[in-house]
Amino acid sequence: MKERVLELLKNGYPDFVSGEAICRSLGISRTAVWKHIQALRGAGYDIEAVPHAGYRLVSVPDRLYPAEITRGLATAFLGHKIYHYDRVESTNRTARELASRGVPAGTLVVAEEQTGGRGRMGRGWFSPHGLGIWCSVILRPAVNPMDAPPLTMLAAVAVARALRRVTGVEAGIKWPNDLLVGEKKICGILTELSAEMERVNYLITGMGINVNIDRHQFPPELRETATSVLAETGRRVSRVALLQDLLAELEYWYTLWEREGFAPVLARWKEMSVTLHRPVKVFTWKESWEGWAEDVAPDGSLLLRLPGGERKKVVSGEVSLRTR
Amino acid sequence: MKERVLELLKNGYPDFVSGEAICRSLGISRTAVWKHIQALRGAGYDIEAVPHAGYRLVSVPDRLYPAEITRGLATAFLGHKIYHYDRVESTNRTARELASRGVPAGTLVVAEEQTGGRGRMGRGWFSPHGLGIWCSVILRPAVNPMDAPPLTMLAAVAVARALRRVTGVEAGIKWPNDLLVGEKKICGILTELSAEMERVNYLITGMGINVNIDRHQFPPELRETATSVLAETGRRVSRVALLQDLLAELEYWYTLWEREGFAPVLARWKEMSVTLHRPVKVFTWKESWEGWAEDVAPDGSLLLRLPGGERKKVVSGEVSLRTR
Repeated sequence: MKERVLELLKNGYPDFVSGEAICRSLGISRTAVWKHIQALRGAGYDIEAVPHAGYRLVSVPDRLYPAEITRGLATAFLGHKIYHYDRVESTNRTARELASRGVPAGTLVVAEEQTGGRGRMGRGWFSPHGLGIWCSVILRPAVNPMDAPPLTMLAAVAVARALRRVTGVEAGIKWPNDLLVGEKKICGILTELSAEMERVNYLITGMGINVNIDRHQFPPELRETATSVLAETGRRVSRVALLQDLLAELEYWYTLWEREGFAPVLARWKEMSVTLHRPVKVFTWKESWEGWAEDVAPDGSLLLRLPGGERKKVVSGEVSLRTR
Repeated sequence: MKERVLELLKNGYPDFVSGEAICRSLGISRTAVWKHIQALRGAGYDIEAVPHAGYRLVSVPDRLYPAEITRGLATAFLGHKIYHYDRVESTNRTARELASRGVPAGTLVVAEEQTGGRGRMGRGWFSPHGLGIWCSVILRPAVNPMDAPPLTMLAAVAVARALRRVTGVEAGIKWPNDLLVGEKKICGILTELSAEMERVNYLITGMGINVNIDRHQFPPELRETATSVLAETGRRVSRVALLQDLLAELEYWYTLWEREGFAPVLARWKEMSVTLHRPVKVFTWKESWEGWAEDVAPDGSLLLRLPGGERKKVVSGEVSLRTR
């Protein structure tokens, strides 16, 4: 009901909406209206109240509230169910719990802050309050687990495109799915999987996008390796707008992948890649190789040309880019 | 402490062990000893108590109690931590919850009964009280999820070998991991996986082995398709002995796989296969093919020769065996 009061104020914006009109429209008492207005103010909405004029929305808080994300969201299923938290350990962890309880495909988990945000290879992810998009999407593709890896590269394409359109930041993709501006990471993606051998139960794509983090707000040890939209452009952007565009992109590429397979996604991935056609070093849990990043195979593996001429297919690992 | 009293009685078997000896050995009072004896009786142990003679173990209940499984277990890590339940929805489900809370690799979950036992392809698994081995093993192999599928075939080899040695039942393996006697299923295996794209978090191998189920105890709809050790041999066997042998087999093949890869496991799998070199029909979620089961690839995929001569690699699916 609070959301419906907010909706009326937004529809009336920038004008006043009379308390009586709200009562009539929603079939609730003036006392109830007042209670919802107070709740909205508590959530950070600035609402002016003037006797005989009514209520007027002055400003919306910089929060990733479901009501904000949903309004104007151009997706068919992605983000139609949203769980928003002020603070979680990690959105992937919360998403895992929700997914195992059976929430529908397309469910979005988003938090203002992560206290234990995680990146690939067991590393942490700096996730300060209100300054980034820390979110996880629950998907249930009807594939077997061996066909799931492309989805993490698909997410990289979606984030890169949303970043370009909404913020102007041109991030490149480092295999398989880190987003870099220059040498610095602006987004990390951690995909997790629960599966039987024959099929995926659920897949969680966690994304951490550094949005309105000022350069000096990064911990010293990250300043050389991390960046943000604000650090790159000098401008703060609406996280809601960026997230909405990201969800639309993600749904577009995901639907395309379901219909046509990985090839069209991979073609776009390659266009945005900063890994290919250069010398790299690849680390896995056990080994590492230096070589020339020659191509990416149709299944998403990195094809590495080793110094001896041998070609090595790398299924998973961490790439460090060498200067030429 | 109850387990330690039991241990003393077993060591003394078939003689009496005096109450005083138990008190002294464990540093507890006679009242405490009596309390533990009562608890053991409650768990189904038949214990004779004779004044001035002491206590004597008469019989052990037909239960998969951790104390029974552990005694004489010949493994280095598998089954060293055991969770036993009288009744669970499914041991895989319980194992999943335990695994996400971080229990160590090798942990065994075993239940006398499953109320919602599950098989592959979303089917149920009949799991009546006390008549089978319904168990799940938690493993944490340091591999990426694409390398995990062989583990489900490895489990089939382990169960088949344990069945042969302990019960004399010669089960064949239907790709990838059903165990058949004739055309009837005696064991099903359901492997589940939680992973990031780069590595497996945990892998759960759930096994359902029909042991002491009488032919007429199967529901009518299963009588043509399911069998048990009892139905095949006319003899009841010790579930504890079978489970102990299974754990030892499983650890042997798992360790071999870690050290030498899938090839030696696959060689043994092929020897016990009833799928190869015969006409089959393979069903996946979306499609089905009829063809000749020619071979299994090094990654465990089934290689099917289609009527037109084309070779089809099947990564996952359900095989139905055709008569020649």
